[in-house]
Amino acid sequence: MTMINAYTPGQGNLSQDDEALVQRRAKLLGPAYRLFYETPVHLVRGAGVWLYDTAGNAYLDCYNNVASVGHCHPHVTAATARQSMLFASHTRYLHDTVLDYAERLLATFPADLSHVMFTCTGSEANDLALRIAFAHTGGTGLIVTENAYHGVTFATSAMSPSLGSGVNLGPHIRTIPAPDSHFTTHVQAAITDLQRHGIRPAALIVDTIFSSDGVYADPPGFLTPAAAAIRAAGGLFIADEVQPGFARTGSHFWGFQRHDLIPDLVSLGKPMGNGYPVAGLVMRPEVIEAFGSKARYFNTFGGNAVASATAMAVLDVIATEGLQANAQSTGTYFRDALLALAKTCEILGPLRAAGLFLGQDIVTGGQPDGPKAVRIVNGLRGKRILISATGPQGHTLKIRPPLVFSRANVDRFMEGLDGVLQSI
Amino acid sequence: MTMINAYTPGQGNLSQDDEALVQRRAKLLGPAYRLFYETPVHLVRGAGVWLYDTAGNAYLDCYNNVASVGHCHPHVTAATARQSMLFASHTRYLHDTVLDYAERLLATFPADLSHVMFTCTGSEANDLALRIAFAHTGGTGLIVTENAYHGVTFATSAMSPSLGSGVNLGPHIRTIPAPDSHFTTHVQAAITDLQRHGIRPAALIVDTIFSSDGVYADPPGFLTPAAAAIRAAGGLFIADEVQPGFARTGSHFWGFQRHDLIPDLVSLGKPMGNGYPVAGLVMRPEVIEAFGSKARYFNTFGGNAVASATAMAVLDVIATEGLQANAQSTGTYFRDALLALAKTCEILGPLRAAGLFLGQDIVTGGQPDGPKAVRIVNGLRGKRILISATGPQGHTLKIRPPLVFSRANVDRFMEGLDGVLQSI
Repeated sequence: MTMINAYTPGQGNLSQDDEALVQRRAKLLGPAYRLFYETPVHLVRGAGVWLYDTAGNAYLDCYNNVASVGHCHPHVTAATARQSMLFASHTRYLHDTVLDYAERLLATFPADLSHVMFTCTGSEANDLALRIAFAHTGGTGLIVTENAYHGVTFATSAMSPSLGSGVNLGPHIRTIPAPDSHFTTHVQAAITDLQRHGIRPAALIVDTIFSSDGVYADPPGFLTPAAAAIRAAGGLFIADEVQPGFARTGSHFWGFQRHDLIPDLVSLGKPMGNGYPVAGLVMRPEVIEAFGSKARYFNTFGGNAVASATAMAVLDVIATEGLQANAQSTGTYFRDALLALAKTCEILGPLRAAGLFLGQDIVTGGQPDGPKAVRIVNGLRGKRILISATGPQGHTLKIRPPLVFSRANVDRFMEGLDGVLQSI
Repeated sequence: MTMINAYTPGQGNLSQDDEALVQRRAKLLGPAYRLFYETPVHLVRGAGVWLYDTAGNAYLDCYNNVASVGHCHPHVTAATARQSMLFASHTRYLHDTVLDYAERLLATFPADLSHVMFTCTGSEANDLALRIAFAHTGGTGLIVTENAYHGVTFATSAMSPSLGSGVNLGPHIRTIPAPDSHFTTHVQAAITDLQRHGIRPAALIVDTIFSSDGVYADPPGFLTPAAAAIRAAGGLFIADEVQPGFARTGSHFWGFQRHDLIPDLVSLGKPMGNGYPVAGLVMRPEVIEAFGSKARYFNTFGGNAVASATAMAVLDVIATEGLQANAQSTGTYFRDALLALAKTCEILGPLRAAGLFLGQDIVTGGQPDGPKAVRIVNGLRGKRILISATGPQGHTLKIRPPLVFSRANVDRFMEGLDGVLQSI
């Protein structure tokens, strides 16, 4: 069981203080926690695209999509503080904030997606999506991509092959390769295999940017026939928007919109509260009928007044600061810069990107080179530029900065990358 | 599928504005959400033990255990605000706050329970407990009480019979009656039944105050032989402390301590962040070894710096305001007041309580009377006193106020209850 870009205890170039902290972590948090990088980063402050360590050194954050509108954005933290001091309670009392937010959020979706339910994490949102899909379809079969990640609950970890072979896939899970020109054929084959085993298909669920599979955004529309195939088999199409959602892909607010289709269920998470734990599930009203007729749903903190006010402030910032347009224009600038460098650097293989989500393959002799990608990730970390790597072979640089990233930030990244590539 | 004390749409005495809000909820949130009371409460502000509606009316909160140190406690909201503005990131970078909190939290436990992992909700904590118990024991069999509630994920809802018959129990779940003098016998019978079906027992999991079963705290120690029985069968004993934890039972900080035993896993939730979404799982180090050797755990928001700082502030307040002692003394005062009233009021049947968690049975001719309990709950709501009811027959008044509850608050409650009982 490995994790790309994980710190190996006993390795790295740690200060005495940080070494002590690593040991304290092991003692307190146990063996299932991981740190990033050969030498972990010890952080104390964040602002915009910058993170600061204990010595005051600034790191350019090209990785964290949770702090999507920038670390510690004052408009968002003010909303959290204001609502925390006023009223923080749950959805079993009438309260306007959760409804005001629901309305504003749903306005970013096609009209057919008209209900939203609130959870605290993307894992809970995907887990709830399964419960709803099972109730609606009467099926239990699920199709995911070969290196998918959909969560850490019992049910969602069982459909997250990227967690490694130590985490069993559920018996009703089928995996398909990362998107290629035969994507729909693979989906159809998985449907046939489920049916051959007497398992009724419940859903095809995909991260619409396929982050853990290595970032697959193109060609736009490739998901549409796959969604049609699962629906023809009686299953639902679930779009996991935890990674691409909230304007990251630039051309659209949601990743599925790139494919010009309307999912049955859409799960939301990470950037929704810019760090405040809030997530949700948006749906066509007909798919929740079966679940709603026999079960209730209450998530103690889900949709609480502070979560709603905070998430509302995130939508404010995306709109007022034009972050979708920035994701598009800065993303294009970023992509062009990588393509230009690739012309003179054969280590840089295929680039796949949409807006400010970029997957840059690292290759040697045209072949995937995961170890080299990890060296680049750590080389950049040495230059105080934070990214990571992804994909089944770990050879894809995962570049996914806060949406307030500027062209000057791109230039800084490219300068750093150029330096690292020269030294490798 | 029913829920105790749920609002029935179209009923009640709602203002035009509230009626519009109810309809907006249905349109936006769909059919799985529920409100409390025959006439829902529309709240906008909270402070201490008081909640305020749109007209500025004050409601005495005798129900909400999330805002455990009082609604919108300034020390807690200040900690949230301060850390939100400074740094909010996750556990894959080194950061002191999560470790400082882990240390402080673990100091409230017996020394054998020396690891803690962080989630966002009690559901996620119990769900993780299952994954760990399955990995450690190699079993999948689970024993819960007949009206247990342990969460809303796929796996935890399948072991939460209190969600109603519309939510299927998992095939490897066995239920046992609420605690009586034969509790251990029931546990042993469930173990035997699991084994008879070829299912290896993984865990007995109980809410150590049995809130949804009707509140069972006495006699202290009754859980000890039950825990021994599941361990003898190779399973773990999991204490769900989401309800009783964080000093509520008065005599102890944790509910299991009342029984003088040490669980293998302990799940925490609701009051941990006084409303901020934070939860966790505390454990003996040996039980996480199998899980940790083959799986990693990362919860994006779990243990983030703001969650940790907020939860730390909650521990501060419990200590500095002496809330455990208050739970004990005010709880005793509360219990005595109910017992005194019961002498002249035959509707008040058995009372079960520990600290500020009280379960008062409502009976007619000595028999459980759920409908009358609901009338009392709604009668109190009419007097702006908030409680609910619990238990498989819904005849137990669930009284579970914030821990800052005072004797004057008890007097106010008793005056209200007396009035309601006279009018019934």
